[in-house]
Amino acid sequence: MAHTIAEIAAALGAQAVGDVTLRVSGAAEPAAAQVHELALAMDPKYAGGLAQGAAVAALLWQGADWHALGLKAAIFAPRGRLAMAGLSRMMDAGPAIAPGVHAMAIVDASAQIGAGAAIGPFVVIGAGVVIGAGARIASHVSIADGARIGVDALILQGARIGARVVIGDRFICQPGAVIGADGFSFVTPEKSGVEEIRETLGQRDVGTAQSWTRIHSLGAVTIGDDVDIGANACVDRGTIRDTMIGSGTKLDNMVHIGHNVQIGRDCLLCGQVGIAGSSRIGDRVVLAGQCGVNDNIFVGDDVIAGGGTKIFTNAPAGRVLLGYPAVKMETHLEMQKALRRLPRWMKNVAQATDKGE
Amino acid sequence: MAHTIAEIAAALGAQAVGDVTLRVSGAAEPAAAQVHELALAMDPKYAGGLAQGAAVAALLWQGADWHALGLKAAIFAPRGRLAMAGLSRMMDAGPAIAPGVHAMAIVDASAQIGAGAAIGPFVVIGAGVVIGAGARIASHVSIADGARIGVDALILQGARIGARVVIGDRFICQPGAVIGADGFSFVTPEKSGVEEIRETLGQRDVGTAQSWTRIHSLGAVTIGDDVDIGANACVDRGTIRDTMIGSGTKLDNMVHIGHNVQIGRDCLLCGQVGIAGSSRIGDRVVLAGQCGVNDNIFVGDDVIAGGGTKIFTNAPAGRVLLGYPAVKMETHLEMQKALRRLPRWMKNVAQATDKGE
Amino acid sequence: MAHTIAEIAAALGAQAVGDVTLRVSGAAEPAAAQVHELALAMDPKYAGGLAQGAAVAALLWQGADWHALGLKAAIFAPRGRLAMAGLSRMMDAGPAIAPGVHAMAIVDASAQIGAGAAIGPFVVIGAGVVIGAGARIASHVSIADGARIGVDALILQGARIGARVVIGDRFICQPGAVIGADGFSFVTPEKSGVEEIRETLGQRDVGTAQSWTRIHSLGAVTIGDDVDIGANACVDRGTIRDTMIGSGTKLDNMVHIGHNVQIGRDCLLCGQVGIAGSSRIGDRVVLAGQCGVNDNIFVGDDVIAGGGTKIFTNAPAGRVLLGYPAVKMETHLEMQKALRRLPRWMKNVAQATDKGE
Repeated sequence: MAHTIAEIAAALGAQAVGDVTLRVSGAAEPAAAQVHELALAMDPKYAGGLAQGAAVAALLWQGADWHALGLKAAIFAPRGRLAMAGLSRMMDAGPAIAPGVHAMAIVDASAQIGAGAAIGPFVVIGAGVVIGAGARIASHVSIADGARIGVDALILQGARIGARVVIGDRFICQPGAVIGADGFSFVTPEKSGVEEIRETLGQRDVGTAQSWTRIHSLGAVTIGDDVDIGANACVDRGTIRDTMIGSGTKLDNMVHIGHNVQIGRDCLLCGQVGIAGSSRIGDRVVLAGQCGVNDNIFVGDDVIAGGGTKIFTNAPAGRVLLGYPAVKMETHLEMQKALRRLPRWMKNVAQATDKGE
Repeated sequence: MAHTIAEIAAALGAQAVGDVTLRVSGAAEPAAAQVHELALAMDPKYAGGLAQGAAVAALLWQGADWHALGLKAAIFAPRGRLAMAGLSRMMDAGPAIAPGVHAMAIVDASAQIGAGAAIGPFVVIGAGVVIGAGARIASHVSIADGARIGVDALILQGARIGARVVIGDRFICQPGAVIGADGFSFVTPEKSGVEEIRETLGQRDVGTAQSWTRIHSLGAVTIGDDVDIGANACVDRGTIRDTMIGSGTKLDNMVHIGHNVQIGRDCLLCGQVGIAGSSRIGDRVVLAGQCGVNDNIFVGDDVIAGGGTKIFTNAPAGRVLLGYPAVKMETHLEMQKALRRLPRWMKNVAQATDKGE
Repeated sequence: MAHTIAEIAAALGAQAVGDVTLRVSGAAEPAAAQVHELALAMDPKYAGGLAQGAAVAALLWQGADWHALGLKAAIFAPRGRLAMAGLSRMMDAGPAIAPGVHAMAIVDASAQIGAGAAIGPFVVIGAGVVIGAGARIASHVSIADGARIGVDALILQGARIGARVVIGDRFICQPGAVIGADGFSFVTPEKSGVEEIRETLGQRDVGTAQSWTRIHSLGAVTIGDDVDIGANACVDRGTIRDTMIGSGTKLDNMVHIGHNVQIGRDCLLCGQVGIAGSSRIGDRVVLAGQCGVNDNIFVGDDVIAGGGTKIFTNAPAGRVLLGYPAVKMETHLEMQKALRRLPRWMKNVAQATDKGE
């Protein structure tokens, strides 16, 4: 997949200078770049690397003197990481899945597969499934009865799409993700210890042995457009209504979404985040890695939580959170600063008090 | 799967009123319910929803005036969530797996498959495996040599059951779960830094470079009756004796159970909980999402831990825990309250001391 | 797989006494050992167990009186767990995969499979893949185009190896692991709230709704020799250069390694650890279960972090860490001790101050 500098610049909406007919077949860090590769030097700190590497074309920081850097051509992009997004999309060949349905795939006769789809070996597609045009479905994927998926889906190896799950356009699903497992919802014949604790904040009767009965999930999962799901991530079905993920939301690897959860638009949930059952997450929420959200709470629009934050109570829109339990970021920083000083401070106060007596 | 109101009430051990011959084919939230669905209105707050929706039959809170709510029939259940368990079991069709062994499944000639089993495509069942009657095994599952599974198992897409694993009756396994991976157990030729830290609580020699040698897991996993395992959860084999999970225990998605762990009966381990190697968990223990349990410790019967609790030391029976490191819930709440006040309080005390001098 | 006591002792480099021609076919805990099994009694506390069990040969603690313990043969190993490593390797038959390529595996004609390889059913191996001699590849594994794997690999059920991933010799991969998913890297057209927070530590404009654009991962993953990857663990591709894992490093179940991460040699990353994008981990680093490492930071050689530690900033070589946020272990213990005393202490100081006035 070679592209001219002019083509790349046009795709990025960026400005190209020098010999724009020059072709590159890949991108690389400046010091490691070979002569046929585009060096990615979007910051002046890479100037030295350009000299070390063999690239003759580069994506450069604004204002760079491309002649002095010894280049034959250059692209200037005002926002480097955004340019990277466009460039990486051009350069990514994607998985190699032959067009059509592989002879070793099992597609139910009642399933509707859109035009131009590529379905790999050992895929199983159930009755009544509808998949939009342009789908690429890698090996070992299963899509259960009645699921519906929009156009241009990319579903990678061994992902599991459950029955009656509905997904919008341009869905990307990394390997091993499970969309539509049964929710984790159980009830005991009599009130359980957990219910008592929630009511009394600590007092309960521990005498009775009881077993758990499953509440099956009759709902499914509804997912909007442009949603990405990470490797080995899990999204559970809803109990009655569907678990919901809004358009533009991205889930990283091993994110866990409990039953009945509703997630808004354009959220980022980073690696190993967990959202317990029936909680609602607003739009544009960003939860860094290993965050946890309690069940049955609400996290407002534009909330951002740092890594490992555990959110136990409703969070108002726009709040920046940190800590276990989560508090405002500045409160967390103050508390941690005070806690760091505390051991010595207790000693000093104790001495001062002694002296005073 | 349509049922009459009378049938549903009988299955739930509940009282039905009105036209009990009326048939419903599903359940829904009151406001979204269609005319052929049973509205789930187990709390007076749903009264308004019933008026919005089209249902003519409902599962109602005790004492509700079903006539005034405009219904033709109603079911009263004293404990609503328990009724939901029974109702959802009736309404859940489960996965569509054709009876018998799929032509594209590979079942070893020495395996014994119980009567009425349904085994899906691309399943692999190894030598000497024994599976009880009524098993439903979805696509892409693998069950390795010598594993034994009781009656009425439901094993969903891509789950992995390791060699010689023994599982009781009515096992439910969500997609992608791995039962019987090798334990994470390594040793260095000389004492490692970790061993030194454990002995000295902080002092050690960091000079020596050593490599890790695996201690293979020769044990397997033994699982009781009525155990459920969540999507992409992992249960490791034991080193010599088996890792054990007691009857009635439920694991949520992405729960990690290390080698040699012993878990009692009727426990609930919620999403992303991790239990490190060789720890013992009592009966009826409930660990909320993202809890962690250190290796080689004991968590007593009826312990309940809130979300994100990290348990480093033995926990006595009946204790309610919270925090990192885990302490009694009330202690945690006091500590957090004090910590919240600390920054301002330090300032005040410093001022008071200054004044006093 | 029966072995004589002499063979076992020779393999372990240990001393054998008594009837060293005696054969054992397995190993067991002393109290549960049968007559044909080797009892594992590497500590005097197991003396009683030996009397209860039926074993006539044992692996014993240094200085044990094997005659008095009623044994016919014994092996003495100076470092018991190291002996266990050797012994468990001898006793572990490993997965049963028939030699050669299974009729139901799909191996691209251009792939090179080394001598003596065993490839199970429903495996997919892509174009240009190179796999060294002695590989054992269990059912349902996929290895995408251009991946290269060294000699004696053991890749278990349903593991996913992405395109162009390069792995050294003696690789062990537990079921369901995903090596080479796309990194979690997104950018907005304008500066996002997260970028603003990082710059201002708290202030930002929340008015603008923006969508995320993926930065595709053009790099792959490079893994050294003797690396083990746990069940359902995930290692993402790099954006431009490869994500790297050094020789001798071991990852436990559900460990998450973000894009561009570089991990050194001989590290242990325990269950559910997460390393965010572009961070670097030194050699011999040990992160206990559920640790988290922030993006773009450096964790020095020989760092050890206790369970659940969240590392937000660079950690110097040799540091022992604990806490959220991570601090030196002794600092953490002091802080927690002070925090435990704080509620009562605040009360006492308040009373003292009142009295003093």
